[in-house]
Amino acid sequence: MLKNDAFRSMDRQECLRLLAKVPVGRVVYTRHALPAVLPVNFALDADSSVLLRTSAGSDLVRAVDGVVVAFEADEFDADSRSGWSVVVTGRATAVTDPAEHEQLMRTGPRSWMPIQQDVFIRIEAAMVTGRELTDLRVND
Amino acid sequence: MLKNDAFRSMDRQECLRLLAKVPVGRVVYTRHALPAVLPVNFALDADSSVLLRTSAGSDLVRAVDGVVVAFEADEFDADSRSGWSVVVTGRATAVTDPAEHEQLMRTGPRSWMPIQQDVFIRIEAAMVTGRELTDLRVND
Repeated sequence: MLKNDAFRSMDRQECLRLLAKVPVGRVVYTRHALPAVLPVNFALDADSSVLLRTSAGSDLVRAVDGVVVAFEADEFDADSRSGWSVVVTGRATAVTDPAEHEQLMRTGPRSWMPIQQDVFIRIEAAMVTGRELTDLRVND
Repeated sequence: MLKNDAFRSMDRQECLRLLAKVPVGRVVYTRHALPAVLPVNFALDADSSVLLRTSAGSDLVRAVDGVVVAFEADEFDADSRSGWSVVVTGRATAVTDPAEHEQLMRTGPRSWMPIQQDVFIRIEAAMVTGRELTDLRVND
């Protein structure tokens, strides 16, 4: 966003490596024509898509199935004013293939919430961007 | 989102109290017709609006000035699978009044990034929602 020395852009592999370290990210989408955001726990699939597990009747499934969403994760440290953020942007789709659903029931993420009728949502890692913010206090 | 016992909705005052505890949140908006999200440090103003400080020429100012955005903050603990999230939704506007700008230069948030030509963005707390996720492991 801002071009200055405090930020370092990260390549796709570095972004995905950091993303794999954190349990919670945020789905960013549109709901009733307003920007919406929902924190969820997630897992990365072998193809680097983001996997979420939710309930079949959830607002989230209705809002994101078939549309392009962003998925963000980050870690920041207030004392050193440093950290990183990664954004995955791509189409979200509910997994409908029975064999894939069965496999994800065994190997996919477990939701931190109670689930009614499990649905897995896959967010394609079509675009992966990230940046690292380094400590600036030495310049204060 | 999901109606179940794991979540407790929080009222506006509780949301704002939690929001005041964390230094970083995420602006959620639309950029080039795609969902976008940017972590930023922030402060709450006396009227509970969210204050950000950025550069006059930043993509963020161009993208959000005058439009409704969401602003999210959260804290989660992976071990206990518990935490909270708060979302403020409202119109973002760049502060243009010289007296208000002067005051914010003294009292407003300091950016963690180097800034060129400071601009303050205010996000009205038109809608404030939040929820708490409690530990579910006892039911596993």
